[in-house]
Amino acid sequence: MGKVIFNGHIVDREKAIIHIEDRGFQFGDGVYEVIRIYNGKPFTLKEHIDRLYASAQKIYMEIPYSKQEVKDLIINLLEQESASTCNLYLQISRGVVPRNHVIPETASPTLIGYLMPGTRPVDLMKTGGKAVITEDLRWHYCDIKSISLLGAVLAKKKATDAGCLEAILHRDGIITEGSSTNIWMVQNGKLFTHPANQFILNGITRQKVISLLDFNQLPYEETGFTVEQLQNADELFLTSTTMEIIPIVEVDGVKIGNGTPGDVTRKLQTLFEREIEHECGHLLSKVE
Amino acid sequence: MGKVIFNGHIVDREKAIIHIEDRGFQFGDGVYEVIRIYNGKPFTLKEHIDRLYASAQKIYMEIPYSKQEVKDLIINLLEQESASTCNLYLQISRGVVPRNHVIPETASPTLIGYLMPGTRPVDLMKTGGKAVITEDLRWHYCDIKSISLLGAVLAKKKATDAGCLEAILHRDGIITEGSSTNIWMVQNGKLFTHPANQFILNGITRQKVISLLDFNQLPYEETGFTVEQLQNADELFLTSTTMEIIPIVEVDGVKIGNGTPGDVTRKLQTLFEREIEHECGHLLSKVE
Repeated sequence: MGKVIFNGHIVDREKAIIHIEDRGFQFGDGVYEVIRIYNGKPFTLKEHIDRLYASAQKIYMEIPYSKQEVKDLIINLLEQESASTCNLYLQISRGVVPRNHVIPETASPTLIGYLMPGTRPVDLMKTGGKAVITEDLRWHYCDIKSISLLGAVLAKKKATDAGCLEAILHRDGIITEGSSTNIWMVQNGKLFTHPANQFILNGITRQKVISLLDFNQLPYEETGFTVEQLQNADELFLTSTTMEIIPIVEVDGVKIGNGTPGDVTRKLQTLFEREIEHECGHLLSKVE
Repeated sequence: MGKVIFNGHIVDREKAIIHIEDRGFQFGDGVYEVIRIYNGKPFTLKEHIDRLYASAQKIYMEIPYSKQEVKDLIINLLEQESASTCNLYLQISRGVVPRNHVIPETASPTLIGYLMPGTRPVDLMKTGGKAVITEDLRWHYCDIKSISLLGAVLAKKKATDAGCLEAILHRDGIITEGSSTNIWMVQNGKLFTHPANQFILNGITRQKVISLLDFNQLPYEETGFTVEQLQNADELFLTSTTMEIIPIVEVDGVKIGNGTPGDVTRKLQTLFEREIEHECGHLLSKVE
């Protein structure tokens, strides 16, 4: 994995170097995507590229490439790298200008993209993981997939310190999302997740799950639920691009439901795998 | 200004290059300081270095240099650059590791430091500037001087869009601080500023002003005040390392007091200039 998308070209990794005055490095002034690659094929590529442009627009940054150009760069990279199943990291920052909080009128954004190893966490999908609940201390622009991520990093630390997979965040007692995932609750056969507003990142996997629920006429509601409701849920799971759908079987040391992945969660995992296979071909290792 | 502090050494600028996987570039995972240089001498250097280490500790980052080593690097840079009056930018990020929200157990932080042009804004100190009030949408770790600054960047944009110098932020109606400054109000001869908690960055200039108020037995209170109180203030000013003490004479198009810098503000400007001269020598251009 030695090739990098760098400002409109594909170059050897050692040639993709960042200037100390890049606003991505000094202000966290940029946006990004992580795109799942299965069998060398990008999954939900259009949705990720669309969101990258939407995030950029929200921070008043114009991406100096068309969506088609970005797509072509990605496809070209996948070919050059002979990609199999992995993750693609794509980031665009405001570019290099003398340091000033004021957004520069003219700056040439820095685009980077490269592949990262990443097999499907099938064992974790089957057994489920643990989480902690902690206060959501992040900003009110969580709908922007920005690289100003230190708030998420500090939240994730609370999970790893407790030996857990994820930190589930609440704002004034209402569950928002995980530090790098969306959070779903199942209660009496109905699914609940926080509405897509400024307090969560509207995950592509979250959106794909919603489309699966719609198609399969499964009941759900995009509405806030409380910490107490979560603690008493029948099932709990997280969604993320890299992890797909992972059951949460224990929160703050207390079992959720009977402490094993629930039927609704498992059904969704299967439906999701079919989506992947439909778009990217046969998966070797599956939950099903 | 062609020299850069880079990982414990002083190098030519073109040799200070950042890796695409530096967590400063991908997560805003780092802390920084801006230090004022007058006549080639750093002002309140100890306070800035102490705060850099305090910020690093708050994000669980160990700086692999002693405070004395960082100080020596700065002094060495000032000598090599034949510095006069300017600003020194100093940043330390977590370092280069494969991308993951989890804070790495071993990472070698990236230290950079360099000089930026910056004369004293004496005209602005005399005439004062304008501000807008906007909601504080940032995170709850504002006491950390981190490089995850996009929230501050988006706030500053509201000021520049309105042709103003600064955006004054409020959280639930209580004034916190400016997008890159601390905010002070004078009412009936008494000064007010937000307490130094997780909702503001405890500016070194703010701290220096407090010590001047103490020494000169001027009445002040570190307490939150409302948007309405601010609008009806006798005087308003901001403090910052690069701008020192700037009167705010108009907010959201409405004059503060009589719309000119007030007596208390001007007195503090003079006291502050004496502090600078005491530490860094004679100033050529002054408010006084």
